[in-house]
Amino acid sequence: MKIYDGGRAPNPRRVQIFLKEKGIEIETQQLDLNSLEHRSPEMLAKNPVATVPFLELEDGTVISETIAICRYLEELNPDPSLFGESSLERAVIEMWNRRVEFGFFFRVAQSFRHLHPAAAVLEGEQVQAWGEKNNALATQYLNILDDQLAKNEFIAGPKFSVADITAIVAFQFFKPARVIMPDEGHDHFRRWADAIVQRPSMEL
Amino acid sequence: MKIYDGGRAPNPRRVQIFLKEKGIEIETQQLDLNSLEHRSPEMLAKNPVATVPFLELEDGTVISETIAICRYLEELNPDPSLFGESSLERAVIEMWNRRVEFGFFFRVAQSFRHLHPAAAVLEGEQVQAWGEKNNALATQYLNILDDQLAKNEFIAGPKFSVADITAIVAFQFFKPARVIMPDEGHDHFRRWADAIVQRPSMEL
Repeated sequence: MKIYDGGRAPNPRRVQIFLKEKGIEIETQQLDLNSLEHRSPEMLAKNPVATVPFLELEDGTVISETIAICRYLEELNPDPSLFGESSLERAVIEMWNRRVEFGFFFRVAQSFRHLHPAAAVLEGEQVQAWGEKNNALATQYLNILDDQLAKNEFIAGPKFSVADITAIVAFQFFKPARVIMPDEGHDHFRRWADAIVQRPSMEL
Repeated sequence: MKIYDGGRAPNPRRVQIFLKEKGIEIETQQLDLNSLEHRSPEMLAKNPVATVPFLELEDGTVISETIAICRYLEELNPDPSLFGESSLERAVIEMWNRRVEFGFFFRVAQSFRHLHPAAAVLEGEQVQAWGEKNNALATQYLNILDDQLAKNEFIAGPKFSVADITAIVAFQFFKPARVIMPDEGHDHFRRWADAIVQRPSMEL
């Protein structure tokens, strides 16, 4: 199998960290997003929705969507589990991964895509007011994460999971997205982030 | 277990259809979204991100997020499978469900939330230009779905799946979202939609 990747963009980063946490190596071809290589006819024939990364299997089947890729690789390589080991654990991890995707990761990404001039090539018409709304919502969501991390070592409970990967990648994208981390407060979130960035999987 | 539900809003509808397809009955309490009952202190204590629907288990554990709820119920009630039976089938279904969520369902929802005056109570500050952008993108996505349905009976392949539920609920929300179905073309999409709405699970 082969991954068509997109460098340091947030979704590529999520899969890269996931693979390192699992100890999986897969042949990778980098696509240059700024020159819209992911939208070339050759790549659109593989993945018509033009997202990165995507996984191409030996028989030519393409799996796009970060979480679909990660869950498929988890099924082939169950240990260590990053999606949960029981039905209930899987439900709680999926809930938190989705909460973080929609409430935090997506907000940070929208702030980047609508406020950063370099994102215009990807976004087309940028909507300033939408970027600003998401910028504020991303910062607000730190309260939800801080409350959760006051009671739990990791985002979805006592174990590191795919939800932590989603959250740390969003946090590390604050700067290009122009989201400001408040100077004070959010101590539980800071404790969590300081620990996560030490993991070997986070090395660039 | 008990579901805290939100009437005919799109995510509640997805879970309602899923339950009927599976033949599962669960005690349900309706929350009135227009009076913001889902944001009452009692409900925020259960689900701090204030989404509907959410599932409360006997031990008090809350599972929010439509797809986390559906996947958990699928694990407890495997037949008929709506998330896939093999690793590869599950990957393709998750890919298509997510493609439809981000490219279609979400676009329709954003069009509603930013263009319909009645959505202001849920959205707060509405961003007209963002609503219009999503309105156009929802219509454009019909091309992706039509291409896929030219080659497949259902959205994710030869079997009805959760991806069909996501897509039909988005399509049925076109009117409140002010998305216009083009008068001509998209014949494969129309064939699919005409068949899906006949399913007993679609009855209101």
